[in-house]
Amino acid sequence: MRIDQTLNAWLDTANAPGNGFPVQNLPYCSFVTDGTTARIGVGIGDRIVDLHALADRGLLAGLTEATRQAACEPQLNALMALDQASRAELRARLTELLSDPRYSAGVKPCLIAQNRVRFGMPCRVGDYTDFYASIHHATRVGALFRPDNPLLPNYKWVPIGYHGRASSLQVSGGDFRRPVGQLKPPDQERPVVAPCKRLDYELELGIFIAEGNALGEPIALDDSDRHIFGVGLLNDWSARDIQAWEYQPLGPFLSKSFYSSLSPWIVPLEALEPYRTEWTRDAADPQPLAYLESERNRRQGAIDINLEVWIQTQRMRAESMDAQRLTLGNFKDLYWTVGQMVAHHTVNGCNLQPGDLFGSGTLSGPLLESSGSLLELTEGGKHPIQLANGESRTFLEDGDTIILKAYCGDDQLRISLGEVAGTVLPSNSTT
Amino acid sequence: MRIDQTLNAWLDTANAPGNGFPVQNLPYCSFVTDGTTARIGVGIGDRIVDLHALADRGLLAGLTEATRQAACEPQLNALMALDQASRAELRARLTELLSDPRYSAGVKPCLIAQNRVRFGMPCRVGDYTDFYASIHHATRVGALFRPDNPLLPNYKWVPIGYHGRASSLQVSGGDFRRPVGQLKPPDQERPVVAPCKRLDYELELGIFIAEGNALGEPIALDDSDRHIFGVGLLNDWSARDIQAWEYQPLGPFLSKSFYSSLSPWIVPLEALEPYRTEWTRDAADPQPLAYLESERNRRQGAIDINLEVWIQTQRMRAESMDAQRLTLGNFKDLYWTVGQMVAHHTVNGCNLQPGDLFGSGTLSGPLLESSGSLLELTEGGKHPIQLANGESRTFLEDGDTIILKAYCGDDQLRISLGEVAGTVLPSNSTT
Repeated sequence: MRIDQTLNAWLDTANAPGNGFPVQNLPYCSFVTDGTTARIGVGIGDRIVDLHALADRGLLAGLTEATRQAACEPQLNALMALDQASRAELRARLTELLSDPRYSAGVKPCLIAQNRVRFGMPCRVGDYTDFYASIHHATRVGALFRPDNPLLPNYKWVPIGYHGRASSLQVSGGDFRRPVGQLKPPDQERPVVAPCKRLDYELELGIFIAEGNALGEPIALDDSDRHIFGVGLLNDWSARDIQAWEYQPLGPFLSKSFYSSLSPWIVPLEALEPYRTEWTRDAADPQPLAYLESERNRRQGAIDINLEVWIQTQRMRAESMDAQRLTLGNFKDLYWTVGQMVAHHTVNGCNLQPGDLFGSGTLSGPLLESSGSLLELTEGGKHPIQLANGESRTFLEDGDTIILKAYCGDDQLRISLGEVAGTVLPSNSTT
Repeated sequence: MRIDQTLNAWLDTANAPGNGFPVQNLPYCSFVTDGTTARIGVGIGDRIVDLHALADRGLLAGLTEATRQAACEPQLNALMALDQASRAELRARLTELLSDPRYSAGVKPCLIAQNRVRFGMPCRVGDYTDFYASIHHATRVGALFRPDNPLLPNYKWVPIGYHGRASSLQVSGGDFRRPVGQLKPPDQERPVVAPCKRLDYELELGIFIAEGNALGEPIALDDSDRHIFGVGLLNDWSARDIQAWEYQPLGPFLSKSFYSSLSPWIVPLEALEPYRTEWTRDAADPQPLAYLESERNRRQGAIDINLEVWIQTQRMRAESMDAQRLTLGNFKDLYWTVGQMVAHHTVNGCNLQPGDLFGSGTLSGPLLESSGSLLELTEGGKHPIQLANGESRTFLEDGDTIILKAYCGDDQLRISLGEVAGTVLPSNSTT
């Protein structure tokens, strides 16, 4: 599917080159203005369309009652639970309302400036699964722990994932205290309880589930699209020293569950369709088992999404310096596709539910500069990175802000996933 | 706290020796009768008291409005979210209503026979964490994977746990299909997708969270009790062959997420108080770090709960043979207490929420016969166990029913946790 370059919104800011929120995007969010309860909104240019207000003005007539009701909820779960056709009808109606100038007078009262709202969690996340789908990340991190044997034998066969903590997922913009935990200093015989010294970010995309499946009923690879609602940004903040001490044999636990940041926006899968691209597997690598293999997945399983990590330290803020980019990567470098994640997750009959979240795992490309974590960029803290203002970093320091950004397209027509930002505050530990 | 042996219910079946549901217990459940929506009930003898019906008849007057409203919900989450004093007042009121004969005429219309209801999930589980708190289990299982090095260096310092899948938790009584998944037969070079051949149960207790904590605010060990609502039974069914292939480096995933069974009953922590007992740590072992150490935890951190696993095969059912006991164990053999689990889980600031579930991890005692899984009883499938009817088992076969039971006390005054049962159906795979 090619993107329709000719479609324009009647709202000028949505047509500005590279603004990221043209009428071809229409990402969803949940927002609050003073004195109101949360509502579902859709981003357009520098505004949000309030779906509840559209419904109140009769502008969602023609959609099913279930769709209208779902659009008036405070969060997206009911809308995510609709079937694919109903979701497509809503998107088509929103596209019409925002592109046809005859609707501008009716819709304008439903617009709110994005910089005047507070964003909430777009949906209630029931279960959060974090995958590990970048082979470049797995190899570089594996080499730090197991120099002789960086990639474990299952990696090229199994889309490795594990269950994450849903309660500590927070919408972008929050600050959080450096976590305290058990860690074992390399020069000591006994572990201590102390503030994390190797605090890191992880550049990830978050994939949100739409319709679920019944317990016991796997989702076939080529049926996975209708179960995917859309994509957002996820920073899976990680305490590397806590992780190194706790993770065997059952995996990461408290090293990840202190705080995880989500972008306020979820870009619907339909908006990403034009950026689908070929997924390949090196001929020398094992080819996927049957449940992870299809011609369609090969032809268009990957998605071409540009990824960026930016840092702004406390000193940079004090000196009014802009944030500095640390990483440039692309989502299409993943070893496994989103469809393969869905098929694998459900092959055992596990039930997905609307609003469930998949993390992609840290998105690192083949080059060191495309690494999605400081652990990789500094090679385990051995080689500090130099910032333009003379500061250096091995891991995050108090006051550091990390901003993740992602977008499809070019400087003209850009589909933005927005950004997710978070700032590290000092630990409140007295130890 | 000693149990009050003199307290009697006015309902005879609650006073029958060893019935398990005397007035000293009062476990909570969610139940449905024909044509009604789910309601919260409390077990007494062979009956359930319908809390909504009690409220309708004015029998919960004197409690706060918030407590009355919570008691009329279909599941326990709002009741779990009440503060400890409100929960204690409700329990005191229920004790009064069920023991003082002056209330019998008023309460009797609110009683329903347990065998006439369908049980539902007692609460919505937001996040499910599975611990690994039996050192006997960790050692025996570790020896199968790492004969030279069964117990990893962190085990005696860290209450090891990992995040589990909440969506596939189901209330007792369901059947489930043998899961399909990726596994690597030992005699083959490549993995296959096939029905699990090493299907196992895991005897666990489930600990349900009451009041939560704010993100960033740890719960101190000696403050943990008010955050614990109660205890139920949990069977964490496990596909050992899928687990062995997938679990490195991020832990168990699809090997556990196909189905997990919970008992319908949650016994409130107050009912278990009389069975609290000393928690000790071998002098030769590392003593806990400060956040996991208190005099109170040493004095009464453990709970004396008898544990049993029973099996009934398809042939036993066909021959009308009763189930056969496989295991006898005790919850007090755990290496870490429930309070230590709460303190550890939140030391990094992770927020717990009402209805969250902790699994204890497989409850195995020091003896092979007190093992909580077939993996241990058969030493990795090498030594089949013999059943009384001549059958043998290494792992579970289709048609096998596993029943877990747990209780405190003796043949006279017994506090039962009820039971959790589940039956393995054949895989629906054609592979």
